[in-house]
Amino acid sequence: MEIKDLLTEKTVIRPDGRAVDELRPVKITRSFTDIPEGSVLIECGNTRVMCTATFTPGVPRWRKDSGLGWVTAEYSMLPRATAERTDRESVRGKVGGRTHEISRLIGRCLRGVVDMKALGENQIQLDCDVLQADGGTRTASITGAYVALVEALRWAEKQRRIRSAERVLKDSVSAVSVGIINGHPMLDLPYIEDSQAMTDMNVAMTGSGEFIEIQGTAEHRPFSRDELNVLLDLATKGNRELQAIQRTALAGAAS
Amino acid sequence: MEIKDLLTEKTVIRPDGRAVDELRPVKITRSFTDIPEGSVLIECGNTRVMCTATFTPGVPRWRKDSGLGWVTAEYSMLPRATAERTDRESVRGKVGGRTHEISRLIGRCLRGVVDMKALGENQIQLDCDVLQADGGTRTASITGAYVALVEALRWAEKQRRIRSAERVLKDSVSAVSVGIINGHPMLDLPYIEDSQAMTDMNVAMTGSGEFIEIQGTAEHRPFSRDELNVLLDLATKGNRELQAIQRTALAGAAS
Amino acid sequence: MEIKDLLTEKTVIRPDGRAVDELRPVKITRSFTDIPEGSVLIECGNTRVMCTATFTPGVPRWRKDSGLGWVTAEYSMLPRATAERTDRESVRGKVGGRTHEISRLIGRCLRGVVDMKALGENQIQLDCDVLQADGGTRTASITGAYVALVEALRWAEKQRRIRSAERVLKDSVSAVSVGIINGHPMLDLPYIEDSQAMTDMNVAMTGSGEFIEIQGTAEHRPFSRDELNVLLDLATKGNRELQAIQRTALAGAAS
Amino acid sequence: MEIKDLLTEKTVIRPDGRAVDELRPVKITRSFTDIPEGSVLIECGNTRVMCTATFTPGVPRWRKDSGLGWVTAEYSMLPRATAERTDRESVRGKVGGRTHEISRLIGRCLRGVVDMKALGENQIQLDCDVLQADGGTRTASITGAYVALVEALRWAEKQRRIRSAERVLKDSVSAVSVGIINGHPMLDLPYIEDSQAMTDMNVAMTGSGEFIEIQGTAEHRPFSRDELNVLLDLATKGNRELQAIQRTALAGAAS
Amino acid sequence: MEIKDLLTEKTVIRPDGRAVDELRPVKITRSFTDIPEGSVLIECGNTRVMCTATFTPGVPRWRKDSGLGWVTAEYSMLPRATAERTDRESVRGKVGGRTHEISRLIGRCLRGVVDMKALGENQIQLDCDVLQADGGTRTASITGAYVALVEALRWAEKQRRIRSAERVLKDSVSAVSVGIINGHPMLDLPYIEDSQAMTDMNVAMTGSGEFIEIQGTAEHRPFSRDELNVLLDLATKGNRELQAIQRTALAGAAS
Amino acid sequence: MEIKDLLTEKTVIRPDGRAVDELRPVKITRSFTDIPEGSVLIECGNTRVMCTATFTPGVPRWRKDSGLGWVTAEYSMLPRATAERTDRESVRGKVGGRTHEISRLIGRCLRGVVDMKALGENQIQLDCDVLQADGGTRTASITGAYVALVEALRWAEKQRRIRSAERVLKDSVSAVSVGIINGHPMLDLPYIEDSQAMTDMNVAMTGSGEFIEIQGTAEHRPFSRDELNVLLDLATKGNRELQAIQRTALAGAAS
Repeated sequence: MEIKDLLTEKTVIRPDGRAVDELRPVKITRSFTDIPEGSVLIECGNTRVMCTATFTPGVPRWRKDSGLGWVTAEYSMLPRATAERTDRESVRGKVGGRTHEISRLIGRCLRGVVDMKALGENQIQLDCDVLQADGGTRTASITGAYVALVEALRWAEKQRRIRSAERVLKDSVSAVSVGIINGHPMLDLPYIEDSQAMTDMNVAMTGSGEFIEIQGTAEHRPFSRDELNVLLDLATKGNRELQAIQRTALAGAAS
Repeated sequence: MEIKDLLTEKTVIRPDGRAVDELRPVKITRSFTDIPEGSVLIECGNTRVMCTATFTPGVPRWRKDSGLGWVTAEYSMLPRATAERTDRESVRGKVGGRTHEISRLIGRCLRGVVDMKALGENQIQLDCDVLQADGGTRTASITGAYVALVEALRWAEKQRRIRSAERVLKDSVSAVSVGIINGHPMLDLPYIEDSQAMTDMNVAMTGSGEFIEIQGTAEHRPFSRDELNVLLDLATKGNRELQAIQRTALAGAAS
Repeated sequence: MEIKDLLTEKTVIRPDGRAVDELRPVKITRSFTDIPEGSVLIECGNTRVMCTATFTPGVPRWRKDSGLGWVTAEYSMLPRATAERTDRESVRGKVGGRTHEISRLIGRCLRGVVDMKALGENQIQLDCDVLQADGGTRTASITGAYVALVEALRWAEKQRRIRSAERVLKDSVSAVSVGIINGHPMLDLPYIEDSQAMTDMNVAMTGSGEFIEIQGTAEHRPFSRDELNVLLDLATKGNRELQAIQRTALAGAAS
Repeated sequence: MEIKDLLTEKTVIRPDGRAVDELRPVKITRSFTDIPEGSVLIECGNTRVMCTATFTPGVPRWRKDSGLGWVTAEYSMLPRATAERTDRESVRGKVGGRTHEISRLIGRCLRGVVDMKALGENQIQLDCDVLQADGGTRTASITGAYVALVEALRWAEKQRRIRSAERVLKDSVSAVSVGIINGHPMLDLPYIEDSQAMTDMNVAMTGSGEFIEIQGTAEHRPFSRDELNVLLDLATKGNRELQAIQRTALAGAAS
Repeated sequence: MEIKDLLTEKTVIRPDGRAVDELRPVKITRSFTDIPEGSVLIECGNTRVMCTATFTPGVPRWRKDSGLGWVTAEYSMLPRATAERTDRESVRGKVGGRTHEISRLIGRCLRGVVDMKALGENQIQLDCDVLQADGGTRTASITGAYVALVEALRWAEKQRRIRSAERVLKDSVSAVSVGIINGHPMLDLPYIEDSQAMTDMNVAMTGSGEFIEIQGTAEHRPFSRDELNVLLDLATKGNRELQAIQRTALAGAAS
Repeated sequence: MEIKDLLTEKTVIRPDGRAVDELRPVKITRSFTDIPEGSVLIECGNTRVMCTATFTPGVPRWRKDSGLGWVTAEYSMLPRATAERTDRESVRGKVGGRTHEISRLIGRCLRGVVDMKALGENQIQLDCDVLQADGGTRTASITGAYVALVEALRWAEKQRRIRSAERVLKDSVSAVSVGIINGHPMLDLPYIEDSQAMTDMNVAMTGSGEFIEIQGTAEHRPFSRDELNVLLDLATKGNRELQAIQRTALAGAAS
């Protein structure tokens, strides 16, 4: 099945009326809060994630005197981001497996576009807190965290903590989910689709169209090489569009 | 010193130009997120707290078969609500003393206006997550949580989970901070004033003008009975104004 | 209602036969154990708290090179201080909210009478372990911890770790509970009264009659400004008597 | 670059002398220990993982009365599996992010080949403990855990806990790592190669040649669609060979 | 070396002037606190341990419907029982190895004299909290806990929760430490001796002179069979004396 | 009852057909894994423990600049070492009492034969991970850990980290369990016997026949001095045989 077939597949009706290769409406609000060096609210449909970037001089101990910087991320859900209230991980006394997995994913993706030498011995911590969850929270976090990262680097440049924000950024990065629902490959799954997906894939790509992270999981039905190719085409299209929205957001003055 | 003196004390200049007995601008956004039964964003100056109310049938085990409901609260700060990033309590593996103290305070204040019999064996969990902190986060949480609580009770009434939201509510509740800075009693302290306050007091009051909670602490300089009286006058004025804002917010349709 | 009315209120009968404005018998045993720099057993009726003070050179990291000392406190209940055995917090793996709240309260009250400059870069840790609980454990802890603090300062003076114990102490401090039971304001509530109190207030005062901490909570029935005033009168009377007992204990030689 | 090119790329010399598309020697020892329902030692080069499968009647609470079974996995490293001793997670008091991530991956892969209806309300827990680590521990865990799973199902069939082991198994599953080192795509990376890899991918495939999980990460250098295709070709070849070894192991009697 | 030699060994001078086979002064205060079913303060020289016994109907889940009772123990040190303040295990978030080891030892010793059938499905929890530590805290805990256990059983008999306290008690139990210091076997070591002991042994014995627990440890110098025999003679003498003190304490009315 | 009687006691039949004073077959595999400085698999009947020794320059902070080394141990069970799967302590978030107790025991025994001065400021960490448990895991751990310790010291000697392995070792150490089952003293109890034992004793001895640790526990039936003597005779015989096996293993080249 080719991507063209997908586009002409008029009979597939998604719960929100979108075409199979259509993103949900995306809105990026810059300087969402005033205090952090970078602060972004990203909304992908009903999914809303607050992404902040904290710039700190110095790096963790294991990286000292390397001349290299470090970028790390933490993801978390507010208790009522979900339909059923989730207990706070602070109250349960430990960070759960899913949270760990996503935090690590976000960190790797953002590190993938940062030139650690140009950053110097400085650390950027990205915090992605999900205010409302409707599928795709981890990919929205990556897309939003990139904008917060750029804000923080611009701040650091102005503060003369780094020489040039541009030189630190090797590329841009965004991420989107794709999946197969009832045999139909689809782009950007909200919760209702995600929970029915037999195959679910998160794809992070750079502005120049290469992959930083592919996580495809098919607990419910394995997928073929052909299906993989269609999913990657959809993800490529989605990421290209998300990157245009990132560029627009970053071109404007911070709100 | 009488409250009149305070009002005529023209020479006192606060960093943000307010009079000593003046609240910061307050904004209450209802239905801030779509999923919870009650969801409110309260902004008091630069302090912003997201308050959600979760309505669940049933009560904790120790309260079963009592015919009574239960109301509880959890407070938390996002890592970059503050100027310096605070480590997540989930990552540190335990809830800190300050968080515990504030969560318990919010819970007591809200329980103070709820008729547990009228609520029946249902539980309401209030989550107050500070998106940005500039002093008075615990009092803003109480004031905002009350509005979220009312939203949740109205929802429960519509869903016929309770007979009447109005009967559950014995009264309304709001809270405000007062303090003495350089000898001057003042209302509603932002962080810059709070950190200089010799005496700091949080006062939660009902709509009918009675006290639900008074927490006055004077680690840096004890306060006299007279000073206490001036502070209580200021708190009474502030709470009266906050309750008017609550009423207006609750009169409008949810956004 | 005036305090005079209270005293003439002959009809109010308390379970232990006390007048409404009467403290339970208080006994302070100094040098209760031999090892700590300060060690006190305070008994208020059936409530018994062991308070020790540990003097250590040096201060926590965040206070280094400030020239200032530090005072901190930890409160804990032995498992069978209560009628039903309480699980140990060490076994549960975390300090509970109530314990945190009380530890912080005791610390603030004691810091409120200490001149940190005169203490120099030394730390005093107060440990309040409740051997038996019958209401008022947090206020007994404050009253007893003050005596242990003085013992430790005198020890430090003798050891020439500080110049003068007297100069470190800006004032003395004690605390007492007051509350409203069935509409009657009362002083120093044992457990049986405390559990029925509609309003419950803990008041820490200095020897010179000023407030260091007021914590009034009225989860069950809000209280009016007039009631507050009666409660504060009762607390003032109680604290004055407690401070006389502290003085007597400190005048004698350590047992 | 095509897979053919890779095979003819004679100049690439790997530290252990293997061809770029060659697996390390694999050895699967069945019934490695006597107690568990399934127990396997898998050795991939110097990597050694002990995989046990525990069959228990009943399922976790959230799955009760669904008629469906459940499969879950836990991964762990012994302290001296690695060159530098790693502190035990039990001693540190929490499971780390990496461990969580891998445990979840193994669980998903194994669930991907199990027919939960045919398993009935029974649970299989897979424990993968790394005795020695030399790269590819997570993929070895998946490959070994599959054999332990089959052993446990055969046991359950003999014990008449399930009707037929064969019906529970929808397919077989194995996994292998691939990566790009200095621009050369390679199969089955030992630690020395893994630590130099710019791109690293773990690919779990079914016996029928479909994907269950693809996790490609390119923190150090993004990869193109063409490179992805070569990596997937290598992984397909590797998995096909691993599955032959699994079949041979399962054909023999348990040692 | 025979025990006789020991007794004539006049030249050995212990820091506190005792003979090598002499116990420190022992004092057992019954009903030390009022609330628990059993409450004892035991003082062995400067070591002071508060031992409480909690009687609860019912047993832990794993013992339900067995018709048997259960006895368990928890040991803990107050922070300033020791010369240097020890951090609370609740604050550190976990129970340490030494505490675990001692709690388990106390539990085993007390279970060793209880007829679980005669106890019926009831549980007794022994809490041993060290107020002051000067060596031998674990043996003092066992000796004191036995008296608290008897108090609790007598209470239970009076309350008709058990038929007969006497029938539950198969025997009495006490414990004492012995050790070898500079080649001299000695009874009942205070801290100063304990810290110099090359060999250290804790011996719990029944009233009828049999062993319930022997824990000999010789990290610093192994000991011979002959030395062991002398140590056991000393322990037998010490335990016989401790049991006489227990009997006297239990014969009197509770204070 | 004398040891001779035991040997002639022909009527006692043990589940595995052994004589009462006979060890289970013991097998020590050296260099079981390649990475650690010492690595041993010890099998005592069906009990199998992997013991590794990690040599690290430097000592814990509290021992710095003492010129002395340190030896410590950690014991753990894999989840399916036992018939019923045991939850991982990492997942439960804390190390249990039994684990703590055994880890401490192993550490003390090994320290008992090490000359800390000759070791110098180096640390050896022993990790004993039970792959399969059939009684006697703690004694097998001690016996195996000794061999791993020697391997690590020989490695350190070759690496010139220490002057001489031989000088560090003051003696050898092994351990074995003994117990009384139905009145019959027996050597080396497998699980089935251990669970029936009224008295259970673990005895660690040096090569020169002295005791390093005796832990006898008689929760179910106290034991007499005579019984103790028989048990110690059995333990002495068992340890002598284990030490012969250790010597043979250490004489051969590492596998």
